[in-house]
Amino acid sequence: MKTERRKQKIHSVLARRQPDLTLVMENIHDPHNVSAMLRTADAVGIHEVQLVYTTQKFPRIGSKSSSSANKWIGRRKFASIPECYQQLRNEGFQILATRLDENAKQLYEFDLTKPTAFVFGNEHGGVTDEAAHLADATVYIPMMGMIQSLNVSVACAVTIYEALRQRMEKGYYSNPRFEKQILEKLKEEWLKK
Amino acid sequence: MKTERRKQKIHSVLARRQPDLTLVMENIHDPHNVSAMLRTADAVGIHEVQLVYTTQKFPRIGSKSSSSANKWIGRRKFASIPECYQQLRNEGFQILATRLDENAKQLYEFDLTKPTAFVFGNEHGGVTDEAAHLADATVYIPMMGMIQSLNVSVACAVTIYEALRQRMEKGYYSNPRFEKQILEKLKEEWLKK
Repeated sequence: MKTERRKQKIHSVLARRQPDLTLVMENIHDPHNVSAMLRTADAVGIHEVQLVYTTQKFPRIGSKSSSSANKWIGRRKFASIPECYQQLRNEGFQILATRLDENAKQLYEFDLTKPTAFVFGNEHGGVTDEAAHLADATVYIPMMGMIQSLNVSVACAVTIYEALRQRMEKGYYSNPRFEKQILEKLKEEWLKK
Repeated sequence: MKTERRKQKIHSVLARRQPDLTLVMENIHDPHNVSAMLRTADAVGIHEVQLVYTTQKFPRIGSKSSSSANKWIGRRKFASIPECYQQLRNEGFQILATRLDENAKQLYEFDLTKPTAFVFGNEHGGVTDEAAHLADATVYIPMMGMIQSLNVSVACAVTIYEALRQRMEKGYYSNPRFEKQILEKLKEEWLKK
C-alpha cells in the first residue's frame, strides 16, 4: 500500500517537472541557502540545477535541513561559466543572470514560459561580471524599501515562483513535459531512491 | 550632501509604503526567519507588522542579520489572535491565514490589491487553528514537488511578492498611499532614526 502511494506520488511529481526551467548556482556557499534553494526548486518543479563552483566548494548539505530536496534535484557540474552557458544554449535556454545593473530588466517583464535558466551568485559578491556579461539579460527584483538587497534564497524563491505562476497560467503543470520514454525511465530511477 | 540624499531616499521609500498590506507573525521563533521576513517586508513596502506571541517570545534580532530592516518596519503587539484580528478588521483588512487545509484557496486566486493581512505561523506548528478559523480565508502556495513544505521566510516572500506584483500593475507604488499629513510626520520621524 505504502509502495503504491509512493509510486503515485513519484508519478505525479515527475508529471509536473519542468525540464526547461533551471538554476545556475555560482559559488553559493552557505549550506542553508543552498538547501532552501533546492527545496524551493523542487516545489516549482525544477528537475536539475547547474553548479559552477570556481572559488567556493559546493557545501555539504545535511539531509535534515534540506528536507531531502537534494535527493530529488539533479546536479550538473561545470568547470566554468562559458562551459555551462554553452551547454544551456545548446539546449535552447535563455540565460538570465540575477543582478541589478544598468541594463537589468525587471523580473515581471520576462516571458518565463520560455526555456529559462536563472543564474544566482555568491552571497557576498553576487553574480560575477563574466556570468552577467555572457548572459542573455540581467534581471532584477523590484525593491521598494530602505534595504537594497534580499537574501539569495529569498530572491531565488521570488524569481522561480514567478516562473511557476506564468507556467501554471499556461497549463504547463497539467500535462507531463518529459517525453514518455524519459518519464518512464525516471520513474524507475526514482522508485529506487 | 549625504543628508540630502538620505532625505530623498526616505521620501521615496515612504512614498511607496503600502499601509494596507501587512503581516501577522504568530509565534515565529527563529531569528533568521524573522529577520528575513522583515527584510522582505521592507522590500515590498510593508510599513508595519502585527505580532501575536502567545507561546513563544519574539526573538532578539541582530542588527547585522536583518540588515537593519527591523529599524524601518513598525511593530504592533497583541495579546491574542481575536484582539489582533478585531483591530485589523476595524481597519478594513481581509485576513488571509497561510495554511494548506481543505478550504484553502490558491495564492494566485486572491485580489491582493485589497487591504490584506497575511498570517504566518510558527515553524513547527504552522498557523494555529484559532488563527485559521477566525481568518477570512486560508491560502496556500502551489507546490509541485516531492517536499510538501517551504521555509516560512520563503513562503512569506512568495506571498507578499505576489501582492507587490499585483499592486505594481495597478500603479500602487507610483503615488504615495499615505495621506499627506501622515507622510510628512513619518518623514520627520524617520530622519531622526
